[in-house]
Amino acid sequence: MNIGIIGLGLIGGSMAIDLRRRKFADSIVGVDADMINASAALRIGLVDELVSEDECVEKSDIIIVAVPVSAAMKVVCRVLDRFQKEGWTDKIVMDVCSTKEPIAKATMYHACRSQYVATHPMAGTEYSGPWSALPNLFDSKVCIFADQEESSPKAVETVSRLYDALNMRISFMSSASHDVHTAYVSHLSHVISFALANTVLDKEKDEKHIFDLASGGFSSTVRLAKSNADMWTPIFIQNKENLVKVTDAFIQKVQEFRDNIENMDEAAIRSFIDEANRIKRIIK
Amino acid sequence: MNIGIIGLGLIGGSMAIDLRRRKFADSIVGVDADMINASAALRIGLVDELVSEDECVEKSDIIIVAVPVSAAMKVVCRVLDRFQKEGWTDKIVMDVCSTKEPIAKATMYHACRSQYVATHPMAGTEYSGPWSALPNLFDSKVCIFADQEESSPKAVETVSRLYDALNMRISFMSSASHDVHTAYVSHLSHVISFALANTVLDKEKDEKHIFDLASGGFSSTVRLAKSNADMWTPIFIQNKENLVKVTDAFIQKVQEFRDNIENMDEAAIRSFIDEANRIKRIIK
Repeated sequence: MNIGIIGLGLIGGSMAIDLRRRKFADSIVGVDADMINASAALRIGLVDELVSEDECVEKSDIIIVAVPVSAAMKVVCRVLDRFQKEGWTDKIVMDVCSTKEPIAKATMYHACRSQYVATHPMAGTEYSGPWSALPNLFDSKVCIFADQEESSPKAVETVSRLYDALNMRISFMSSASHDVHTAYVSHLSHVISFALANTVLDKEKDEKHIFDLASGGFSSTVRLAKSNADMWTPIFIQNKENLVKVTDAFIQKVQEFRDNIENMDEAAIRSFIDEANRIKRIIK
Repeated sequence: MNIGIIGLGLIGGSMAIDLRRRKFADSIVGVDADMINASAALRIGLVDELVSEDECVEKSDIIIVAVPVSAAMKVVCRVLDRFQKEGWTDKIVMDVCSTKEPIAKATMYHACRSQYVATHPMAGTEYSGPWSALPNLFDSKVCIFADQEESSPKAVETVSRLYDALNMRISFMSSASHDVHTAYVSHLSHVISFALANTVLDKEKDEKHIFDLASGGFSSTVRLAKSNADMWTPIFIQNKENLVKVTDAFIQKVQEFRDNIENMDEAAIRSFIDEANRIKRIIK
């Protein structure tokens, strides 16, 4: 299978590594608008060749769009336009974006919609760029397929095989419910980490103290605050409606707990913590 | 050195492991009000013998008080009373509590205050009980000594050697500034995790979806929500004043960011994230 990857960052690059060594990909060509990223990806050996977007679409059986969500919408539409224009009915384009509804709406009425598979591999780190690419990044994680009934069964099957090669478990849902769920379990966590980092940085002008007192607890809660603005700004904007609701629910919880503390209501604090402990059953 | 540990949980138990194998402790006796904890600690081999609190004070050169903060205040005072009554001027009592001001006030005027060393080893996990005790838990972490000028130089020196054996770096500060700093870098993180867990658990009645979508991001932000109510309820209450202020500052940050998202103010979102990214210089 000839693979083309548009966007040679953490996700695109990590896919390249495992698709190649697990022999799913016979060849991998890559595109990146950022010349530093592009040449790093070539030097590291993530891709065999750097090409233009046009060439990438021409040479590849599967085109993986792994750019930030705002750009992805345009790229996927452009690729579908090209499929239509050239009469390429066997090629497949897939994206890996963290928000699914806006791109679903943008592609909904495209003549070649069935050649597009909307996916979201739920894996990553707080780092970015081709030098952050890792082998085994996707192993045992979950990949969401959104609105799979809009894609041709053959395209879904091919992309499923691709994710099998990445050792991912596949879960199907609508793009709308994907965006609600990710607002809760991923996007909100990022909002919280950014806000925590800024709260602490604002107050602790003497950074030595942060460092001294930053035990494991703080480091893990604030870890996501290292995530990058290019990726996350468009995600927050695209998932605005869900995220605002979810953030309001969170603020209310924090406020409730804060009031329990202020009132020294031991029973209420204890029951809030006991409730939260139920997360043990779900997260290891 | 003969060591007595009152409170055979994660911290007391982990200290026992390393103090013994690094040959700081010649013998270790233990006390725990919970018979299940106590007998587990003996069975695991954390302590040589289970004794009463009275016997523990009698047999030990250093008494480590590792019970939750609410109880610790009473235990430390009781031990100091005993020192005074028996005329034991060479014994030392130390605590390992996460809040330092209330206990500082409670002991301030005690005739034997100089035999008490107030410490907070900044290490732990989200688990509790003697079966959670780990070797190397304290390695390379920081231990705070609070108000060390109130303790005798000899007592400070002896307890410093104990923490040397645990491979900790020692940092000195007043109990008041300890409690402000820990409110920011430890207690707030816990408030956030508990609130996040409850937000998500409330909304996601179908827990399978949480599990499916819980990528690394959520797991790390919510990790502390597994922490236990017996330990954290009294910490929150004892550090109420600082914690309420800090939580208010955090709520304001979340609100600001939420408003930027609602207004789709890309520049403001981006600059909020860029600011938060400065945490990279501090946290690895």
